[in-house]
Amino acid sequence: MSGRLSVVGLGPGDARYLTPEASAALAGADALYGYGPYLERVPMVAGQSRHPSDNREESARAAAALRHAARGASVAVVSGGDPGVFAMGAAVCEAIETGPQSWRTLDVTVVPGITAMLAVAARIGAPLGHDFCALSLSDNLKPWDLIERRLDAAAGAGFAIALYNPVSRARPRQFGKAMDRLRRHLPQTTPVVFGRAVGRAEENVNVTTLATADTTPADMATLVIVGTRQTRVVARPGRSPLVYTPRAAAEVSA
Amino acid sequence: MSGRLSVVGLGPGDARYLTPEASAALAGADALYGYGPYLERVPMVAGQSRHPSDNREESARAAAALRHAARGASVAVVSGGDPGVFAMGAAVCEAIETGPQSWRTLDVTVVPGITAMLAVAARIGAPLGHDFCALSLSDNLKPWDLIERRLDAAAGAGFAIALYNPVSRARPRQFGKAMDRLRRHLPQTTPVVFGRAVGRAEENVNVTTLATADTTPADMATLVIVGTRQTRVVARPGRSPLVYTPRAAAEVSA
Repeated sequence: MSGRLSVVGLGPGDARYLTPEASAALAGADALYGYGPYLERVPMVAGQSRHPSDNREESARAAAALRHAARGASVAVVSGGDPGVFAMGAAVCEAIETGPQSWRTLDVTVVPGITAMLAVAARIGAPLGHDFCALSLSDNLKPWDLIERRLDAAAGAGFAIALYNPVSRARPRQFGKAMDRLRRHLPQTTPVVFGRAVGRAEENVNVTTLATADTTPADMATLVIVGTRQTRVVARPGRSPLVYTPRAAAEVSA
Repeated sequence: MSGRLSVVGLGPGDARYLTPEASAALAGADALYGYGPYLERVPMVAGQSRHPSDNREESARAAAALRHAARGASVAVVSGGDPGVFAMGAAVCEAIETGPQSWRTLDVTVVPGITAMLAVAARIGAPLGHDFCALSLSDNLKPWDLIERRLDAAAGAGFAIALYNPVSRARPRQFGKAMDRLRRHLPQTTPVVFGRAVGRAEENVNVTTLATADTTPADMATLVIVGTRQTRVVARPGRSPLVYTPRAAAEVSA
């Protein structure tokens, strides 16, 4: 009996963003694994077991789900946003590469989802409308100097930048350090968008500038988009502004 | 009477990737605007008008849709993938900024979708599992030397790279030039993924290396992912390989 594992992207959280493919994968699984708060967003199915774990236990969660699938079950690992963007996709692939040979015979599917940067960008206009980067500010898995080098490269070459995991309790000051670094390359007036919980009751999306970005509240669930020199803010009477990065690039001086 | 405009991401094309929010926006529109082949993917609704246009006419299409909405209608502009990623989102925002003041009072919504790089990445594993960039190789709207500078910056700093619009009839040689540029920074063995039409009958996803990437067929609808020095290819007996970029970054020497 051959087991199956799907790694399923839930999108930003609200059901309106959940693709039919993701809904089907969740409904058809014998067992669900995932970070507790993500599992709570998935409708209950009779006879389905649920295996919540902490958000720092990605490797252990991937291995437990693969062991379960290898016993012949259909297992789904849930991921916020898209599984391939700073989420469970790479953790599952790593576990397969380093685990028992039998895990390589499992039927593994990754089900894409709306990742946070796309949801936040859509809410405000099109700030990622031209070339852009996605960068995690967490230094759990990479040294801080590499993060700074990537911020230099991205801002210097004129990419818009989506920052995942901007702040955690363990590293309250690094977001400010990242903004300082970006100020070496970008004007203080560069638009910066903060988005959190798009589509949920506690949704919060707002626009500031690089000058004051450090003072905007943020946490691990906030997605920050830093524009380019060309990113525009379009004021609208009685409506929130639109923020977009034009499709046509000007030369960058860096 | 106040008009409404939604810019709707269709995802990669198959209905399994269309979010409930996108389905509702399409079904509720009085009129649909978009590139002809994208419009053909949308189920017909009685009484709804359809306004196909060529794929090079983004600005004119955005203006026509806004004029229509300003007459009090509910208009949807369809976009392949996600509207915010090299698609109609920025074109609509530009048209609003440069158009009549009355367009700023319209109710404008951007409905996110599964963009090509997420769909292709999911099909093969998690090649964008760590920091990455999205870059269009089209030089219609930016000079080629800027594209090369961005390739240098992204590869030099260890980002995985998703390339949109890699090849067109008007510029058959630029994809090869881009691969040459990346070879200055990355080993010939770097994994490169080609993906096209994910989820549709003509789906084609395959893995090669930077050494032979130029000889792989590609067109405007192909999405190319170039890995990093750390991207892994995991062979699986009787199955296609998994390609992923580990969550933990090693130092880059560049």
